[in-house]
Amino acid sequence: MTDAAKVTGATRLYAIVGDPIAQVRSPEVFTERFAVADIDAVLVPAHVPAQRFDDVIPALMALGNLDGLLVTVPFKARMLPFASRLGAAARCIGAVNALRREADGSWTGDMFDGAGFVRGAENKGERLRGRRVLMFGAGGAGSAIACALAEAGVQSIGIVDPQADRVDALVRALHDAFPECKLAAATSKTAEIDMVINASPVGMRPDDGLPGDIGPLPPDTLVGDVVITQSPTALIRHALANGCRCITGRDMHAGQVDAIMNFLVPGAPPAGSASGH
Amino acid sequence: MTDAAKVTGATRLYAIVGDPIAQVRSPEVFTERFAVADIDAVLVPAHVPAQRFDDVIPALMALGNLDGLLVTVPFKARMLPFASRLGAAARCIGAVNALRREADGSWTGDMFDGAGFVRGAENKGERLRGRRVLMFGAGGAGSAIACALAEAGVQSIGIVDPQADRVDALVRALHDAFPECKLAAATSKTAEIDMVINASPVGMRPDDGLPGDIGPLPPDTLVGDVVITQSPTALIRHALANGCRCITGRDMHAGQVDAIMNFLVPGAPPAGSASGH
Repeated sequence: MTDAAKVTGATRLYAIVGDPIAQVRSPEVFTERFAVADIDAVLVPAHVPAQRFDDVIPALMALGNLDGLLVTVPFKARMLPFASRLGAAARCIGAVNALRREADGSWTGDMFDGAGFVRGAENKGERLRGRRVLMFGAGGAGSAIACALAEAGVQSIGIVDPQADRVDALVRALHDAFPECKLAAATSKTAEIDMVINASPVGMRPDDGLPGDIGPLPPDTLVGDVVITQSPTALIRHALANGCRCITGRDMHAGQVDAIMNFLVPGAPPAGSASGH
Repeated sequence: MTDAAKVTGATRLYAIVGDPIAQVRSPEVFTERFAVADIDAVLVPAHVPAQRFDDVIPALMALGNLDGLLVTVPFKARMLPFASRLGAAARCIGAVNALRREADGSWTGDMFDGAGFVRGAENKGERLRGRRVLMFGAGGAGSAIACALAEAGVQSIGIVDPQADRVDALVRALHDAFPECKLAAATSKTAEIDMVINASPVGMRPDDGLPGDIGPLPPDTLVGDVVITQSPTALIRHALANGCRCITGRDMHAGQVDAIMNFLVPGAPPAGSASGH
């Protein structure tokens, strides 16, 4: 499989915008996906200084050969008004991380942080519908995942976050969009949950412990963690020790790449279909 | 030799701006040069709609990971004010086709259309100093070549162009910068020339003839043609039939790539030095 692209004058451009940018993986990941799908396109990193965001973004979107943008820290919320059309997740949580140019030149944006988690779970054959979820973290990742889980039909989401105001804001935002899903602030694990998700930064440092007071888990509990690290996080280790199945940060990331690729290039063949490469 | 680049978040960007853009060759040519020189950089095409030029260019230059710009039709003159510092050729003819970001964040621009011709001639071992030149075409290419030839020490340049006003403007512009070089409007070949250059579009169409009334050429006449076509232009065929040595559009293009690469990445190894690839 090739991980390189031949760039010509006719090659279509995609860019990921962020500040800083050198750490992003999307250029490698999506440029390879384009190559596998036989699409003459490259995704390049674009380091947009935060103070220049409002004039640089419209200029990038004016490039006639730029067909899509990915958005990373710290721009996911600031990008929202630059889309002429928003998907449900983006509307619900007020942020976008991918935009595509439509045939008429307008731009559609949506947020795939949560869709990536759901796709990652589905890729592993996990059922989400009806789950009773305890989630740690109501920031950007937590908001996106809560929205995607509600859309996927979970029964309830209890949200743990030391910042009570952002829990309340998230509960209010999701309540209107998904009235069937029970949403509430939570403080600790109760007996009524069968899914635990860490959407907080706890676990990013090697000596981090669990994101909260979780205790023993029944083996039918599905455990998810957004944190991507070399070795499993304390939460994932705890889940495995309790015989639970897991959705890791890597599963979520792979799911998100699938979801974004489908969004950027509707109809592109899925990853792995070009198995001869 | 690789003609592909692996693009990561840390890859440095260069872009060529033009309208249209799909026809440009620079992305392939320079991305390969970067790879050969072991520089983690890619040159991408950027289709800047002409009516958006003035706001898109400053935005591109604000990207923290963009280290250089190439400029093609129709922007070479419009780009001039965006450089904070100009090379001699750019100042002389009022246009730039390459800019690089300096360590202090400022931008230096210069024009290499003429330097490419001179480098192409040097690459073939041709002497330019002291030549008495007859040149057809006083547009962008002709202006740049006249400037570079004057700088290279030719004795005289007679310029043929149906637009007398632009011949006069070019003669005036070069006269101040290169008082040693005899510059004048010309109408046809005289006995006193030993170099003929076509810098007009004549020859781009398959049925084009010679750019002017040239007649037989002594074999010590050096003949140049900016036109790049699949088969030799009528002028190059005429030169070869007269036993003259030639600088073709391809020679000029290769020379320009060398000159621009030196400018964009001072100290980068020359092409071909990585002969093991």
